[in-house]
Amino acid sequence: MQNQNLTEKLISSNHIFTGKVISLQVDTIELPNGKSATRELVKHPGAVAILAITQDNTVILVEQYRHPCGKIMLEIPAGKLDVQGESPEQCAFRELAEETPYTAQRMTLLYTFYTAAGFCNEKMYLYQAHDLLKNSQSETDEDEFVRQVYLSKEDVKKALKNQEIQDSKTLIALQHWLAQED
Amino acid sequence: MQNQNLTEKLISSNHIFTGKVISLQVDTIELPNGKSATRELVKHPGAVAILAITQDNTVILVEQYRHPCGKIMLEIPAGKLDVQGESPEQCAFRELAEETPYTAQRMTLLYTFYTAAGFCNEKMYLYQAHDLLKNSQSETDEDEFVRQVYLSKEDVKKALKNQEIQDSKTLIALQHWLAQED
Repeated sequence: MQNQNLTEKLISSNHIFTGKVISLQVDTIELPNGKSATRELVKHPGAVAILAITQDNTVILVEQYRHPCGKIMLEIPAGKLDVQGESPEQCAFRELAEETPYTAQRMTLLYTFYTAAGFCNEKMYLYQAHDLLKNSQSETDEDEFVRQVYLSKEDVKKALKNQEIQDSKTLIALQHWLAQED
Repeated sequence: MQNQNLTEKLISSNHIFTGKVISLQVDTIELPNGKSATRELVKHPGAVAILAITQDNTVILVEQYRHPCGKIMLEIPAGKLDVQGESPEQCAFRELAEETPYTAQRMTLLYTFYTAAGFCNEKMYLYQAHDLLKNSQSETDEDEFVRQVYLSKEDVKKALKNQEIQDSKTLIALQHWLAQED
């Protein structure tokens, strides 16, 4: 068991659907034991998310209705890599400016991770924004409906304890922030 | 902006695909401003993941090939809610026993969260396993190929720093563990 090869090999790919955000294919693969199996694969362009802390040490969250969950979720600002030629870092600067009244002067990459590695290739780039400036006017998309919420570290500890944070990237970012020294 | 309604209303639903793990539909919804838009929605049965710490204070991880990512990933034990009538907690006991040489006597729920709230309804139940017992024989599925890896807190800190953990549920579990007192 300890030395076995774990790798699966692609045999064939059956395209099912192409949408605005995701596409779907069903791949046939060869397992390490030579048997074949199918894998449903949701393809996604990838996304960025931003941990942004204001000068008075509050984290900027956004409330947004999430149709798949059927409710309003409390999340860090985030968005898809959907602009041609835009780097993840550029996307992070843009999304922060679109979803909040702040812009950042600098971004550092905290983690890259797959949100649902079992069936989806979505890769998330989680940045921390630095040197925030408050904007005089909002750059929000007219069809984007978000509401900003500002939480202190104590507020975040309570929100985590009360299961008010139910979004994976937001849990990762907030745990990271709580572990940082002020 | 601050008092606006954020909720979207479902107008109609177009079923695209039903697979073994996921299904796909494209929903037409009404935005808060009265305009309509479409939402691609991947439906998933939900899943559990388990933070399991051995008596010598190492976390049990599993290496597994993930076809969507095209590589072997290092993750906490996890699995889908795919057995009829099984609760998330029962599923956590079963998956730990299937993917590792340990069984737990007790599970506590740490977090529930959505892995990809923008386009998928997958809900993850993250448990911490308690009072682990080592099994004499493995209960591994014959078509499941996983390899166990045991990391100390120091190992985990290094792995996080070196971007070796690229799975969202595992990042949440490991950060939670690091914040726990020994």
